Amino acid sequence: MSDILRIIEVGPRDGLQNEKVPVSTEIKAQFVRALAQAGLREIEVTSFVHPKWVPQLADARELLGVLGRFEEFWGGLGSIRVSALVPNEKGLEGAIDLGVPAIAVFTGASEAFVQKNINMSIEESLENFQRVIKRYREAIPSGFVRGYLSMIVECPVSGPVDPSKVAALTQRLFEIGCDEVSLGETIGVAVPKDVNRVADAIINETDQSKIVWHFHDTRGTAIANVAAMLDRGYRAFDSSAGGLGGCPYAPGAGGNLATEDLIYFAERNGISTGLDLVGVAEASLPVLAALGRSPIAKSQLAVLAACKSP
Amino acid sequence: MSDILRIIEVGPRDGLQNEKVPVSTEIKAQFVRALAQAGLREIEVTSFVHPKWVPQLADARELLGVLGRFEEFWGGLGSIRVSALVPNEKGLEGAIDLGVPAIAVFTGASEAFVQKNINMSIEESLENFQRVIKRYREAIPSGFVRGYLSMIVECPVSGPVDPSKVAALTQRLFEIGCDEVSLGETIGVAVPKDVNRVADAIINETDQSKIVWHFHDTRGTAIANVAAMLDRGYRAFDSSAGGLGGCPYAPGAGGNLATEDLIYFAERNGISTGLDLVGVAEASLPVLAALGRSPIAKSQLAVLAACKSP
Repeated sequence: MSDILRIIEVGPRDGLQNEKVPVSTEIKAQFVRALAQAGLREIEVTSFVHPKWVPQLADARELLGVLGRFEEFWGGLGSIRVSALVPNEKGLEGAIDLGVPAIAVFTGASEAFVQKNINMSIEESLENFQRVIKRYREAIPSGFVRGYLSMIVECPVSGPVDPSKVAALTQRLFEIGCDEVSLGETIGVAVPKDVNRVADAIINETDQSKIVWHFHDTRGTAIANVAAMLDRGYRAFDSSAGGLGGCPYAPGAGGNLATEDLIYFAERNGISTGLDLVGVAEASLPVLAALGRSPIAKSQLAVLAACKSP
Repeated sequence: MSDILRIIEVGPRDGLQNEKVPVSTEIKAQFVRALAQAGLREIEVTSFVHPKWVPQLADARELLGVLGRFEEFWGGLGSIRVSALVPNEKGLEGAIDLGVPAIAVFTGASEAFVQKNINMSIEESLENFQRVIKRYREAIPSGFVRGYLSMIVECPVSGPVDPSKVAALTQRLFEIGCDEVSLGETIGVAVPKDVNRVADAIINETDQSKIVWHFHDTRGTAIANVAAMLDRGYRAFDSSAGGLGGCPYAPGAGGNLATEDLIYFAERNGISTGLDLVGVAEASLPVLAALGRSPIAKSQLAVLAACKSP
């Protein structure tokens, strides 16, 4: 039996949402197309959050409209699970109008963080999303629902998070109708022992195939955490092409785990991704150019250099 | 008993040797001083290799002279083990003249690579270094000798390297008089299973405390390899402040494991480094400025951003 990794590409949404320099809808569409051409089959492309909070993604409807018109693209490349983040019932209407095949809902394991960010308690956010998911499933029965649970190790507001709380909230996300839960180590402080503690807490509680790990590489620990979770048998990870996804007050800092580093690591370990590493490495270049940035993701630089060298 | 990590800082030598833009002796001296002030006690500062091959380090004598005059620096900071790479008997004379407290000799586990790089067989290089070490010990009886063994996993010329060859050459380096051996995964392709294979081969052959691991972060795998070797009980690693150390044909690519990422990872795992992470993060900034580069090491960016944020 072949050993296969699922990569959920979040660059167009999670990678761009904190970027102040506006990126055109056309460049975003090119980015998504290039990612799909490199083999990615699950791509989170945008968010229906209010433009006041995330101006970069204010073109959600327009972008999804453009993607929907790429007949040759979607036609020739097979089935792509495009997802959009949906914060509330108002945002959901956009996703339903456009027939988005997957939505993502977002809460956190830290009460202080959720309160500060979305002005609700965690429980209120779950009740809100239960309504959102119910309505989405009525409108699009084939639709897929991701549940993000952020701050699974530490919260910048309230400090360390109890792994048993993460386990309980993971269960709750499945109960309200999520098909999978993406566990986010959002601030990028964790090392394998931290993540193992979370995995110990959720063991026996959940079907392993419905868990996705979402690591940020803020302090260079993401791949070590991936290694630990691969060792435990997990085979699904979120990542961002070029490591897009910055920290608001530090150009180049923060950042998601780079898809390129994840592909390299998996393939070197004999786990197949089915992806074209060079294609992924090239996909984010127009976005980086629009942002006025140079690439900094390690495996991206390595393959781009290899292409150029004699 | 406290758990302590030894970090051997190689930024001033391994980090700069491939850089084409000349860095002044003064900036290099400031860099070394800042590293020592941040707590580093083992620093490889330069190389006595012929200036034709490594023009960046042509000021080895001058730099060591400047460092030797920092009375308040060496005096106030206690004992610093400054090392210099010595390729041959001619280079050794410079190290002896200047009373360098440690030297490093350099060979590799790939016959093709050693032949191509220093125009000798591995065995000839060992015979050469045996003479160098003997002469150094006669001149400086308290001197310390590092032996670098590069290409421990793969060689860009001849491909995969047999771990048993690495084990045998490690033994040979001790036999010719090295006090420790630094095992270099020079091209940065390895993942933990590769490095574990090397560690399996050298087990029982060597005193664990005399082995130093030297990882390059070319594809973002260095910290995962560190994690694997920490799990096995190893507690000594080479690293480079700011991840200095590029690939000749890819600005920003390649690079050594960043000292900042190593410090963060160790400390988060409860292993003490005794180092000031902010001080290390700031140490390489004047060097990066001289090279016209922005910082890209993850934990360096994270702590610099934290310093600036409100």
